[in-house]
Amino acid sequence: MSVSHFDADTAVGRTEDGWVADLHERWNIGHNPNGGYLLAVAVRAMLADARRPDPVTVTAHYLSPPSAGRVGIRTSVVKPGRSFSTVTAAMIQGERERVRVIGAFGDLTGQSGPTRVSARPPEIPPPDECESLLELTRRAGRAVPEVMNRFDLRLPADSPWGRPGEGDPFEIAGWIRFRDGTQPTTTSAVLFADAFPPTLLGAVHAGWVPTLELTVHVRGRPAPGWLLGTFRTRVLVDGLMEEDGELWDSRGKPVALSRQLAMVLRA
Amino acid sequence: MSVSHFDADTAVGRTEDGWVADLHERWNIGHNPNGGYLLAVAVRAMLADARRPDPVTVTAHYLSPPSAGRVGIRTSVVKPGRSFSTVTAAMIQGERERVRVIGAFGDLTGQSGPTRVSARPPEIPPPDECESLLELTRRAGRAVPEVMNRFDLRLPADSPWGRPGEGDPFEIAGWIRFRDGTQPTTTSAVLFADAFPPTLLGAVHAGWVPTLELTVHVRGRPAPGWLLGTFRTRVLVDGLMEEDGELWDSRGKPVALSRQLAMVLRA
Repeated sequence: MSVSHFDADTAVGRTEDGWVADLHERWNIGHNPNGGYLLAVAVRAMLADARRPDPVTVTAHYLSPPSAGRVGIRTSVVKPGRSFSTVTAAMIQGERERVRVIGAFGDLTGQSGPTRVSARPPEIPPPDECESLLELTRRAGRAVPEVMNRFDLRLPADSPWGRPGEGDPFEIAGWIRFRDGTQPTTTSAVLFADAFPPTLLGAVHAGWVPTLELTVHVRGRPAPGWLLGTFRTRVLVDGLMEEDGELWDSRGKPVALSRQLAMVLRA
Repeated sequence: MSVSHFDADTAVGRTEDGWVADLHERWNIGHNPNGGYLLAVAVRAMLADARRPDPVTVTAHYLSPPSAGRVGIRTSVVKPGRSFSTVTAAMIQGERERVRVIGAFGDLTGQSGPTRVSARPPEIPPPDECESLLELTRRAGRAVPEVMNRFDLRLPADSPWGRPGEGDPFEIAGWIRFRDGTQPTTTSAVLFADAFPPTLLGAVHAGWVPTLELTVHVRGRPAPGWLLGTFRTRVLVDGLMEEDGELWDSRGKPVALSRQLAMVLRA
């Protein structure tokens, strides 16, 4: 029987004054959990309160990085709506708020209206012809953040990531899936939206690139299999940058659009 | 002496349990105020509580449209940080919450770090060679929403807006400024990010396109003069669409990146 790390490590328990969760160090970057993982944990509690199956638009403000271990999650249903329910969550550790989240939750299979998608998935070689980020990182003699072991992430051999030209955007595109075989969902989509390494890593000298704010619009339930992700930065001003993401499923359908505001910290 | 409608109509007053504001019908679309205007009013109160000059990233969830008139704004400082202060606001009218906002506020002139902008402003003719949206709307015999009278908004004569081809994104690009001569600021940038007509108007049969969620990243203080705005929709699925905006100042510098999730309602 296979255990899904994602399902187990984002589980939340109800208490008298909200929710608790145990953040697992499997999702760490250095000493702190990955931001998309924190958001997914909060979303699990918010979905339960909203009594809806899908996060539709969620925004996290990262206030102070927690450590792996117990956190409290205080949720509040702002508006139990007809189509969407709006919920907020505060993730707390050591009496200090770490992440504040607001989101609207609904049923993506229950929507109706016009469809027209002019965006297209990036054209890169199939996963078998791409290179593993894990292997690339090891070969380069760089440390592998623990969270990277949770994913099978593959980049084209000729990826411009890490070495864009002067006039180009910072950009990374590749295939991603859970290494343990867990299939993607609308809940894990918020994690996948923050699972790629920073767009500008290697191209701009940076110690780390912490996220101030991350918004994910989940636009469809993913088919089983690989997700195709692309992340791009076009405006870096005084150390502040956006990272615009798209996730596509194995049938070429859009799963999520994401954008984050991040800060370049010097090494 | 000139009066700035924007400054006057977004003014907030402190009360014992928060803030109040008087929404003016000058900013209405039909019977309800424009969403960017509501966000700007909330931001005025949040800036005062944050004691910072600039909104850096703000997200609004639109719950229930208010009418022009008195609203209460309950704010809460989530984290008074070193670089950024995070604040939430709830806009209330008739004991019902209408808009929930979260934002991080700071001083955009106090940031330091690398700069590289690969995005470029759209290449359209200068304002004098463009057509007034107000005139275009009147000539087409369509009603002019009251809020449109607050802006001088000009589109290229050959704008693809309203008639995109089958494979094209829905897109609108044009010049915008306040009609009363008020110069743009980082606070009014959140209004300008929601001031253009919907990208798909005229191209997809729609009654109205209400915003569920709007996030604006303000990336620089605008120089005086025109703003150049471009808004694009690439993923419309089952009536849900994103609208990705960019605002550039008269010197070609990025002022704001915005994204909203909106819903197409049938006429």
